[in-house]
Amino acid sequence: MSELPIRDELRGIEPYGAPQLDVPVLLNVNENPYPPSESLASDAAKAVADAMAGMNRYPDREALDLRADLAAYLAGESGVSLPAEQVWAANGSNEIMLQVLQAFGGPGRTALSFAPTYSMYPEYARNTSTTWITAPRRDDFTIDPDDALAAVAEHRPHVVFLASPNNPTGTAVSLDLVRALHEATDGIVVVDEAYAEFRREQTPSALTLLADHPRLLVTRTMSKAFAFAGARLGYVAASRGVIDTLRIVRLPYHLSAVTQAVARVALAHSAELQERVEQLRTTRDELAVWLRTHDLQVADSDANFLLFGMFTDRHAVWQGLLDRGVLIRETGPDGWLRVSVGTEEETEAFKTALLDVLGRTA
Amino acid sequence: MSELPIRDELRGIEPYGAPQLDVPVLLNVNENPYPPSESLASDAAKAVADAMAGMNRYPDREALDLRADLAAYLAGESGVSLPAEQVWAANGSNEIMLQVLQAFGGPGRTALSFAPTYSMYPEYARNTSTTWITAPRRDDFTIDPDDALAAVAEHRPHVVFLASPNNPTGTAVSLDLVRALHEATDGIVVVDEAYAEFRREQTPSALTLLADHPRLLVTRTMSKAFAFAGARLGYVAASRGVIDTLRIVRLPYHLSAVTQAVARVALAHSAELQERVEQLRTTRDELAVWLRTHDLQVADSDANFLLFGMFTDRHAVWQGLLDRGVLIRETGPDGWLRVSVGTEEETEAFKTALLDVLGRTA
Repeated sequence: MSELPIRDELRGIEPYGAPQLDVPVLLNVNENPYPPSESLASDAAKAVADAMAGMNRYPDREALDLRADLAAYLAGESGVSLPAEQVWAANGSNEIMLQVLQAFGGPGRTALSFAPTYSMYPEYARNTSTTWITAPRRDDFTIDPDDALAAVAEHRPHVVFLASPNNPTGTAVSLDLVRALHEATDGIVVVDEAYAEFRREQTPSALTLLADHPRLLVTRTMSKAFAFAGARLGYVAASRGVIDTLRIVRLPYHLSAVTQAVARVALAHSAELQERVEQLRTTRDELAVWLRTHDLQVADSDANFLLFGMFTDRHAVWQGLLDRGVLIRETGPDGWLRVSVGTEEETEAFKTALLDVLGRTA
Repeated sequence: MSELPIRDELRGIEPYGAPQLDVPVLLNVNENPYPPSESLASDAAKAVADAMAGMNRYPDREALDLRADLAAYLAGESGVSLPAEQVWAANGSNEIMLQVLQAFGGPGRTALSFAPTYSMYPEYARNTSTTWITAPRRDDFTIDPDDALAAVAEHRPHVVFLASPNNPTGTAVSLDLVRALHEATDGIVVVDEAYAEFRREQTPSALTLLADHPRLLVTRTMSKAFAFAGARLGYVAASRGVIDTLRIVRLPYHLSAVTQAVARVALAHSAELQERVEQLRTTRDELAVWLRTHDLQVADSDANFLLFGMFTDRHAVWQGLLDRGVLIRETGPDGWLRVSVGTEEETEAFKTALLDVLGRTA
């Protein structure tokens, strides 16, 4: 590999990836623990069988039916009505992010976010030769508005990424901050709402700002709330001009006819999936209380995971849990660990294992 | 859109795309006219139903089962045995090309091909900020080896693209030229064999060169021979070092569990698909003879399409065919048109319409 004419900035880098281990309790990558229902599976199979009759043809390049369904879902979820032309879909929100940086970032341009945040952002920046800059969050993982505006004034970023809720901390961003950043920059502001359906009652979605913020993008995914991580469907809502710009850089026919078909089936089943989301929100809030009861710190979370700590040797705690069949994620600031919210049984297994590792009793 | 902070080189550009028109006879984008069999559709539906049970989990990031199946298919098709680790898959070969340029092209680097060739290559280059250069082909659309080596010496490209058979001309590249170019450059040589299964008996695949050409990549797709354009599955065979490099720049979980499942089903049905390929090769050769009998020029083709001409007003011929319900592609050098090989009925409809447009009788 060292003989190959690979780009200098890629030399010696290992491919990204959370460890994929075969463990009884998987709470490491913020998956939804509930598989799609048998009814959804059956409908998806039917949709694929139907789609196969035209599989020799290229898919609808614009995916307009799917985009209309996504717009209808967003209207129900957030109360914000958008035409299909203001929604765009791709193979996971990571492909959306790549397209955003291809269109608005790239060589000679800068993207800014607030650390700690999602570990893939700098990889998207690297893959598009966009300069990557972070400004720090407060100790409680919220973003100080004055610091944020100062960072924008200093770095004049072309793209600002705001994960809300943030990964790995679970922290939501206030709409006031989104407004202020959009006002302060001529660039693009991306609010990454991958986990938005898990937000608490008082936390609004940035979708409500779209109407009068033409450089705002709100990204979503079906991986989490829809329990559809395997199907890879991310999407974005924005002004029509932004969406039409993404259409220039997208690979033609990027979204397969199969992906479009199964995503539409899952959207048609969104009501049943919503019940699981409610359950996970409840489990998350109860788990946060339990962790605090056991003298651990927990970051306030609007997501389907919790960042908790602090540990002098977090790797030992992570390894101890793994030894007991529970895989969580060693990520975020030193001293903290991230656990995804699982089923009630998985959460109990995590609690039991954690107490054992920490040498405490319930 | 003009108010948006879009990259300068994208301003005013329209999204790529062949017109998607609702016409009885579609011979414009080199699709396979035969849909997958009912047996394949039924197996695909079963596979998707099974996969749905784990759809809440992220897919196998390495797609190793699929890559093993692809390697087994290549062994049968070309006689070249490769381990799964020397095969890589993505959402269409255009995603493969993007990854190749992210890894080996990019800012400050150059990609070279020989015009006329596939119209998407410069778009991949633009999207990765790779400088795009073409050297000309001969009048018969073959590549002059001396000219090619001179172009490599002059431009010192980091990536050389050789479509074989070439789109839109159907022209295959000799293995001697592939060897010579690999020898002449320190860069990557990509032989794009999207249409390779349609090649004539005497035309070899560049897969046979992989063993002793570590910077050679041979790309393939399931869109054409497998009649699977809607499913978006492209792949590449290369040295392990090249594949591991692509794994650095690929988006994590880029290939959905659904895509992996249905592609494996289609590969299991490759024998029945092969019969259709044989039929299309026969139809192509007969159509080439027929066109020549009618005093038209036809480029020798190893693909499932023919470039034919020459017309003083090719647009009028294209429009005349469209008016008669036959959509072909106005592409390639001026004076030429490209027609995909369809079913026997579609080919007859094309012939009848063409004679009518040209004012001749059969």
